[in-house]
Amino acid sequence: MKEIRIGLLGCGTVGTGAARILTEHADLIESRLGAGLTLKHVADIDTETDRGIRFGAGVFINDAWQVVDDPDIDIILEMIGGKTLARDLMMRAIENGKHVVTANKALLASHGNEILGAASRRGVEVAYEASVGGCMPIIKTLRESLVGNRISAMTGILNGTCNYILSRITDEGIAFETALAQAQAEGFAEADPSLDVDGLDTAHKLAILNALAYGMAINLDDIAVEGISSITPMDIAFARQFGYRIKLLAISKLREDAVEARIHPTMIPFSNPLSNVNANLNAVTVTGDAVGDVMLYGYGAGMLPTASAVVGDVVDIARNLLSNAAGRIPLFGCQPDRIRNISVMPLDEITMHYYIRFAAMDRPGVLSKISGILGNRGISIKSVQQKGRQSEGAVPIVMMTHQAREADVKAALSEISALDIVGVPPVLIRIEDENGDEES
Amino acid sequence: MKEIRIGLLGCGTVGTGAARILTEHADLIESRLGAGLTLKHVADIDTETDRGIRFGAGVFINDAWQVVDDPDIDIILEMIGGKTLARDLMMRAIENGKHVVTANKALLASHGNEILGAASRRGVEVAYEASVGGCMPIIKTLRESLVGNRISAMTGILNGTCNYILSRITDEGIAFETALAQAQAEGFAEADPSLDVDGLDTAHKLAILNALAYGMAINLDDIAVEGISSITPMDIAFARQFGYRIKLLAISKLREDAVEARIHPTMIPFSNPLSNVNANLNAVTVTGDAVGDVMLYGYGAGMLPTASAVVGDVVDIARNLLSNAAGRIPLFGCQPDRIRNISVMPLDEITMHYYIRFAAMDRPGVLSKISGILGNRGISIKSVQQKGRQSEGAVPIVMMTHQAREADVKAALSEISALDIVGVPPVLIRIEDENGDEES
Repeated sequence: MKEIRIGLLGCGTVGTGAARILTEHADLIESRLGAGLTLKHVADIDTETDRGIRFGAGVFINDAWQVVDDPDIDIILEMIGGKTLARDLMMRAIENGKHVVTANKALLASHGNEILGAASRRGVEVAYEASVGGCMPIIKTLRESLVGNRISAMTGILNGTCNYILSRITDEGIAFETALAQAQAEGFAEADPSLDVDGLDTAHKLAILNALAYGMAINLDDIAVEGISSITPMDIAFARQFGYRIKLLAISKLREDAVEARIHPTMIPFSNPLSNVNANLNAVTVTGDAVGDVMLYGYGAGMLPTASAVVGDVVDIARNLLSNAAGRIPLFGCQPDRIRNISVMPLDEITMHYYIRFAAMDRPGVLSKISGILGNRGISIKSVQQKGRQSEGAVPIVMMTHQAREADVKAALSEISALDIVGVPPVLIRIEDENGDEES
Repeated sequence: MKEIRIGLLGCGTVGTGAARILTEHADLIESRLGAGLTLKHVADIDTETDRGIRFGAGVFINDAWQVVDDPDIDIILEMIGGKTLARDLMMRAIENGKHVVTANKALLASHGNEILGAASRRGVEVAYEASVGGCMPIIKTLRESLVGNRISAMTGILNGTCNYILSRITDEGIAFETALAQAQAEGFAEADPSLDVDGLDTAHKLAILNALAYGMAINLDDIAVEGISSITPMDIAFARQFGYRIKLLAISKLREDAVEARIHPTMIPFSNPLSNVNANLNAVTVTGDAVGDVMLYGYGAGMLPTASAVVGDVVDIARNLLSNAAGRIPLFGCQPDRIRNISVMPLDEITMHYYIRFAAMDRPGVLSKISGILGNRGISIKSVQQKGRQSEGAVPIVMMTHQAREADVKAALSEISALDIVGVPPVLIRIEDENGDEES
């Protein structure tokens, strides 16, 4: 029986999960793979805390460099995270001719082109199914199953923390800050939640998916990103009246010679299956010219769901090793010499539907002024709702627009804000509704 | 540039779709594969009808045997269907050392073990992603992505025709026969719809999924199968009152040393994402010990969605050919020497919740008699609903049971039917509701 030797770097949540599956399911995996997977070394700065796994003598060590330099080891699992030590260790593992499995979307989104180049020159594999969507096999689906499709769009809920918080705000009508504090208390949000709630984690994932779907070089910097911290129960309630739910979506669409790629809170109709993806679940819909829409749905994070994806990658690489077929599939799905630099369209040039809520002064002529400015910018209003007079202060005016260009909408809102007819700055939420233009 | 040569047998709906994708996306596929795929021969008894594809001279021929015997051809696409000619051609292709891609679930479910043996002895691949769930990558997900999971259950809507018909009955309150006729008129049901509406097509698919999920030999014969022809708008309306929708489900669950595997109309709660899978869409939820639940959702049939899966398989095999890695993954995911004969539990031994509707004579003591007989068999009633007196004939009595054993339920219903207190035989619909036992 052939044996494949693995070195695990980082025994935190996902690393521990991978070690558990590899240990507890050793026989099950062997029955599928036809070879044994041996965890030769696990490296972590903390080798004292009990992970609930019985490692053999000498397996659990402090020195990650020893692992990446061990000539016996075939596959390195990089489960450290971050873009410094993880990157150095990964590059050294690649140099040493080792295959790498990682869940590190931040590293791939920032340095994916460099890693791709190094791996491809050295003839080793870098597998990263766990980096996007946890247990959902979105990387494999894009890179293998949909290989006969021209992909034209992807829409995803790719951050469980944001989805959990938005679901709490929606269900309980609580403020963002309260929902965030609850998510932190329940372990669904980090102590520093900014990477999640500001949308950057979702952008890392979309940058990876774009490369896979469109055969383009990784481009993180040009993806427009807006987080969920300004979402209020009031806007969620208005959305519901119009038949929409608010989700933090990663949206990408192939245009003629560019892609739209953006992360922002988005109103989607109840009829969109993504509107029913709640709590900390993830889902992604891929549109291809042959398949139409195909959707994957599952846990996007968590110890074992993420580790399941890691182990799937390990077995994939092990199968290639057993068949001498390393490099069987190019890292981002497209042959390196066919990867194109496709530009990401500036958000300002994109056209879509908008929800705008004004906190308007309660006096005559305000609605006329607002709609006049919008009209002058070519923004056509599909529906408007003004709540009756309130005892004090501003009244909410809610508008849904027809298709309008982002730059025009922003210019109009800035002009309106400069007048003394609205209180706080207007709230702007983008809408994705493929049936939204039926009457326009 | 290396070239892989393909022979297509059968240029019907799916065959035409595969030929279209291979032709129209030749360059796209080459950019991903790093080699060209050439359709050397297409064989069909009808070479006259225009398929909208420009084949080169001599490509489109009548003789399928010439194709499977052509020493130049690497991969055969068996798109004929059926279990006679398709089987003979497939076995000859395997003998000739050719790899095979098929969408033929009937053939695999009936002769999968034999095909597996022949392919494995000859060292060739038989790929069949298109046989289950059309474009949804359920085969790849089970065989590759979830390789680190012990799979404990699968629940699927795997027949678009049945789902379309049930959706029409649900939405419009029409009779099964009317909905079937509409589905036929719209091209969603065959002229002879029995394979679909009687549930056998779904059983074929479940037999394949069971083999993949549990490492068991194909076992079609022991799967209990009940179709949708007895589903009425009345039962759908009652289901709705109790918070359920009715779907034709393929259900399988791993028990200690056997599996439950059954196809029948099933009530599922609105909270189950499968309840929102409508029209001709398919979906399947897989439960694994690491991933929890993961769901795939998409078009389960149709020319291009199915052909997309076929082309995915072709590219997978082509990648193996380019790397000399044929046989990289065993046919049903498990090493042949580790496949076990796991028995399928008789339906009579399975315990679940039931919906039972009696057409009861409108006279005193009937409810007491019915509930007495159920009680004597150990069947505990969770809720009962009796509609008020009707002007003539029977009144519906609807009961939902707690967990009960199928054999006991059937015995009780047979005893009740023998009395003169019910008109037509009672209607029995099984319920899948993981929260249904909270109060029991």
